[in-house]
Amino acid sequence: MIPASENQPTRRIVVLTGGFTQPNVAKTAISVIRYRGVDVVAVLDAPHAGRTAGEVLGVGGDIPVVASLAEAPTATELLVGIAPPGGALPGEWRAIIAEAIARGLDVVSGLHTFLADDPELAAAAAARGVRLFDVRRNLEREVAHRRGIRAECLRLHTVGTDCAVGKMVASIEIVRSLVRRGVDAKFVATGQTGIMIEGDGCPIDCVVSDFVNGAAERLVLANQQHDVIAIEGQGSIFHPRYSAVTYGLLHGSMPDCLVLCHEVGRNEVWGMEGIRLPSLPRAVEAFEAAANLMHPCRVVGVALNGRTASDAELEAARRRVRDELGLPACDVFRHGADELAEAVLAHGRTIGKEPRPA
Amino acid sequence: MIPASENQPTRRIVVLTGGFTQPNVAKTAISVIRYRGVDVVAVLDAPHAGRTAGEVLGVGGDIPVVASLAEAPTATELLVGIAPPGGALPGEWRAIIAEAIARGLDVVSGLHTFLADDPELAAAAAARGVRLFDVRRNLEREVAHRRGIRAECLRLHTVGTDCAVGKMVASIEIVRSLVRRGVDAKFVATGQTGIMIEGDGCPIDCVVSDFVNGAAERLVLANQQHDVIAIEGQGSIFHPRYSAVTYGLLHGSMPDCLVLCHEVGRNEVWGMEGIRLPSLPRAVEAFEAAANLMHPCRVVGVALNGRTASDAELEAARRRVRDELGLPACDVFRHGADELAEAVLAHGRTIGKEPRPA
Repeated sequence: MIPASENQPTRRIVVLTGGFTQPNVAKTAISVIRYRGVDVVAVLDAPHAGRTAGEVLGVGGDIPVVASLAEAPTATELLVGIAPPGGALPGEWRAIIAEAIARGLDVVSGLHTFLADDPELAAAAAARGVRLFDVRRNLEREVAHRRGIRAECLRLHTVGTDCAVGKMVASIEIVRSLVRRGVDAKFVATGQTGIMIEGDGCPIDCVVSDFVNGAAERLVLANQQHDVIAIEGQGSIFHPRYSAVTYGLLHGSMPDCLVLCHEVGRNEVWGMEGIRLPSLPRAVEAFEAAANLMHPCRVVGVALNGRTASDAELEAARRRVRDELGLPACDVFRHGADELAEAVLAHGRTIGKEPRPA
Repeated sequence: MIPASENQPTRRIVVLTGGFTQPNVAKTAISVIRYRGVDVVAVLDAPHAGRTAGEVLGVGGDIPVVASLAEAPTATELLVGIAPPGGALPGEWRAIIAEAIARGLDVVSGLHTFLADDPELAAAAAARGVRLFDVRRNLEREVAHRRGIRAECLRLHTVGTDCAVGKMVASIEIVRSLVRRGVDAKFVATGQTGIMIEGDGCPIDCVVSDFVNGAAERLVLANQQHDVIAIEGQGSIFHPRYSAVTYGLLHGSMPDCLVLCHEVGRNEVWGMEGIRLPSLPRAVEAFEAAANLMHPCRVVGVALNGRTASDAELEAARRRVRDELGLPACDVFRHGADELAEAVLAHGRTIGKEPRPA
């Protein structure tokens, strides 16, 4: 997978958005800049050239937006920072990728269309000695075995009432909060953006269905040397499209506890008009029932995404979660994730999984 | 997919078992002979040559077991009838397949290793004008949309406490019982053996996980002109390995009713020592809860697989289901499937889905 930054201290990324700067479409770019901004030297987006990432994408402060790779001469890597509908490569971007290869840059892509399957790009990369990382490619072909699970590792999994409610962000922020208090915690990425940020993980939604549970189990095996792992969730058990992915991840990773993620004010499945989301109590009940088919598990907190909510709306939602469910609730951007991290540790103590002293 | 027999009245199959005649390993061969025996002209199995299919496999009566393709000169098709662990092609079988191609036979295979990806076999087949059907190959790349579902079509789905408990057989037998009483019913295959028998379907466990629900929905769309469809289940929501497949199929096909399949006397997940199966009441509750996340659904009967049970044991299990669950229960081989077919029709009437008069 992509070398983690500790192994590659000189990673200097140009993030390609190429005109697609709407939050929904550029969400990979935005998250990579948010969490690896220190490694990002420029955003490549000709229509917005001359401005800053902060102005154009809302994150990244003064990182320059440039019109060509020539304006980022120190770069070591081009990262395709959008997820176009269908996952294919916009035609004009092929030339940009070819230029990146010619300039000696590695290229990282989460598109469904694999760069390494393009004979010309593959040959050029081989000739130039650079690497093409197709983050979605995987060769998972092993079922789950339920062997070698380290009992002491506390497994947290983020789940959601829907897609795109902030499961990745909640996972990362909870891990950061744990690490700040000296806990050996690790974010376990399961989607393309998370993998780009963390440098490892498994693109679970691209795994052949027979091997999804197995791939999730192997993510646990590969990371359980840490005291706490936060396995990024995908989709929702309420989602007509993606529930297979959600269940496989939930069952294969056998979490001890869940953080339920929800966007305040969202009532319907994103992009599927007329399909209602469950209430939070119903969601807690259903996720706990599903998880407990495999391993004892409880929801320990709610991560509220207040993207479109006023402070008053967010506060009301928080209060409702506390009243109805007796659980801590917060927006990890507006309130931080400490309350959720505490809830995870408290649950660990009740089940005898206490992190080793730092 | 494989042409259905009504379109290809001259289908004359040689089933390759090649020495692997144990029921677990030869289960594809056994089911194909059971349900398409009229099309099977020989079993190719040199170690057992000279005997009959009935003697060697327990099905197929006097169908001859032969040592070479030359002994089945009328054949039009070679069907690979085993599912070896890992799904790969035993080395010595390649020569047999090459010979089949040279003799002008189509080749049907459910192996994970695709015949058409073998350059030599593919070239030989093209040159000879025969077809290589890799039943597991699929290009499913569409999510579910929840559009165009025909409300009047009654959707039955078979589910199980475990793998290999008879979901395919229960589906086929219930459909046959329905057809006998004049109902326009159709078996919808989701696994390799079912596809080989029925001539169409989708190998759901080989679909990329993001598209499993979508593939299941498309099976409904493709077959809902029938009054009743019986969608073959896969795996189990209690199975540590395959629950992603099971849920995707359950959610994508949106069944109105379920028949729960269970092997009498089986207490642990097949091949996973120490992992207990649920009680039948628990299984009914969990499957209904899972299905109802998407669509109103009830378990209407239990298909008991009495493979290893005495008559007395089977009768006791039947009585227990009736007492504990108030549901009809039968072994479709020993008692027939009429009771289950009746329960499906009765449920259809209660929800206003009544088949059109024949």
